[in-house]
Amino acid sequence: MSSTAGLILTCKAAVAWEAGKPLIIQDVEVAPPKTMEVRIKIKYTSLCRTDLYFWESKTPLFPRIFGHEAAGVVESLGEGVSDLEVGDHVLPVFTGECGDCRHCRSDVSNMCDLLRINSVRGVMLADGQSRFSINGEPVNHFLGTSTFSEYTVVHSGCVAKINPLAPLDKVCILSCGVSTGLGATLNVAKPERGSSVAVFGLGAVGLAVIAEMTNGGVDRSVECTGNIDNMISAFECVHDGWGVAVLVGVPSKDAVFMTKPINVLNERTLKGTFFGNYKPRTDLPSVVDMYMNKQLELEKFITHRIPFSEINKAFEYMVKGEGLRCIISMED
Amino acid sequence: MSSTAGLILTCKAAVAWEAGKPLIIQDVEVAPPKTMEVRIKIKYTSLCRTDLYFWESKTPLFPRIFGHEAAGVVESLGEGVSDLEVGDHVLPVFTGECGDCRHCRSDVSNMCDLLRINSVRGVMLADGQSRFSINGEPVNHFLGTSTFSEYTVVHSGCVAKINPLAPLDKVCILSCGVSTGLGATLNVAKPERGSSVAVFGLGAVGLAVIAEMTNGGVDRSVECTGNIDNMISAFECVHDGWGVAVLVGVPSKDAVFMTKPINVLNERTLKGTFFGNYKPRTDLPSVVDMYMNKQLELEKFITHRIPFSEINKAFEYMVKGEGLRCIISMED
Repeated sequence: MSSTAGLILTCKAAVAWEAGKPLIIQDVEVAPPKTMEVRIKIKYTSLCRTDLYFWESKTPLFPRIFGHEAAGVVESLGEGVSDLEVGDHVLPVFTGECGDCRHCRSDVSNMCDLLRINSVRGVMLADGQSRFSINGEPVNHFLGTSTFSEYTVVHSGCVAKINPLAPLDKVCILSCGVSTGLGATLNVAKPERGSSVAVFGLGAVGLAVIAEMTNGGVDRSVECTGNIDNMISAFECVHDGWGVAVLVGVPSKDAVFMTKPINVLNERTLKGTFFGNYKPRTDLPSVVDMYMNKQLELEKFITHRIPFSEINKAFEYMVKGEGLRCIISMED
Repeated sequence: MSSTAGLILTCKAAVAWEAGKPLIIQDVEVAPPKTMEVRIKIKYTSLCRTDLYFWESKTPLFPRIFGHEAAGVVESLGEGVSDLEVGDHVLPVFTGECGDCRHCRSDVSNMCDLLRINSVRGVMLADGQSRFSINGEPVNHFLGTSTFSEYTVVHSGCVAKINPLAPLDKVCILSCGVSTGLGATLNVAKPERGSSVAVFGLGAVGLAVIAEMTNGGVDRSVECTGNIDNMISAFECVHDGWGVAVLVGVPSKDAVFMTKPINVLNERTLKGTFFGNYKPRTDLPSVVDMYMNKQLELEKFITHRIPFSEINKAFEYMVKGEGLRCIISMED
């Protein structure tokens, strides 16, 4: 039991008060975790494009604390949490695993009915309240994680306990983007050794060239941009007979996927994935272990490191398209 | 070696001279098989909707001998055929297996580059000629099978050798429709025991009711009509997280498959199949054995039996929507 358990903590958080405006680092009060919740001391967090997307968009959920890629240490536990302990090293995850719904009981789905990603909810499930406040006024959560804060409260079903030897300043990026791409390939596309794989993110023209080079199409394609034309190309560029296209990128709500049905009938497969089909609590620990066993390189994704006080720089890098992941240290 | 090997045979065939007009049973000459070809004495054939479709359509390939669901006995072999013998019981198949192309070497595809279905070719691959003639004038082949004839010539890559104990008047229907549906389910949809499976062929309204009844969608769906709205419904009615939709029915060329990409991203899978993903030579013998081992019921598909002389009745039954399969006996 930590000495702060049960207390309201005052700590620094980066609060977004208005769409597209710089975050303000200021004191917030963080209430103790309620039933099935966990309070986490965030050690490192990083900026993902999804944070940027919602920060830029005019939702009615400001003020809000963004952040969903992070690693930290359990500070205290709410009632009923039996599978975590104070001091555990954890990754908070934007989607969860209740362990009990049809999806959690399925071998293949990770789309938990209870804790599935919800971008329009700014409160906790247990009581419909926020655990963050400033002078008694609530501040909205984001994706149930809100990791741009020294302390945050997360549903225990959204917390993956990981190897305590893993360096948190690196494995923090496994709580979203890298795992999504890794899982889309390993769990869903499943290319055989020697397969050709097209990863979209190239322009459509470049891709057409690659497809032509592969003599009838690629064996697997993975679409990561969310652009609808890329999605369609990603499907149509796979080889008939065995090709599999996996959609990862999130499209606009108005987009429509269109193709000639013969492209399907000629034995092509179209699949989608969410968070790389990883079940966050069950599977993320082993992804961390892949890194520890040198089967997965994370360093190449990390192009910037900044202290928490400079968090707005991370947004600037991403807006300008500079680099991949910027690690934000909460303790510098 | 049969006594008729190498000779031109004169036999009865049902010749289609004009779109939609009754077939004429008349004498045709059947040339001996050339390199890698087989001449087959057809014992039983049945009418499939694909015959009806091309018989009704105004292609420039009349006169033509239709028929592609059948069973027979090898009468003679062309040069180079080493895996069949005179007297073998066989199913001629509308699509083939050269054994050597990328598709044949793939574990999953059956879309042979050399012998894939070709509905607009009325001649044999070896020399671009027909083996059928009437008074020296060629008569077109259909799908490389033309089983509405007492004798036909087929590429050996389109011939499946089967258990000689299997009753040809029943297993003949395994050379197209029944195997397509069976394989679509067993090889592609692969429902687990206890899964809910929607088979389209119901109206869309009825399906919507079934989908509603399944609490979030069916686990698997199989679309057999070729109607584009059904195809889209078949995809959208499967459960997120694990649902798999398999398209079997052949759509019109102008049809466009349209869906919101989020339906894919929510971990649904869309697959197509051709001939149930069965490799005709490799896999059909074991489908016949499934019937012999009472794992597969064929009798329920057979609603009519007629002698060859009454073949036009089979077309009438199908046009009127009466029954499923009509077995046409060549020897009555």
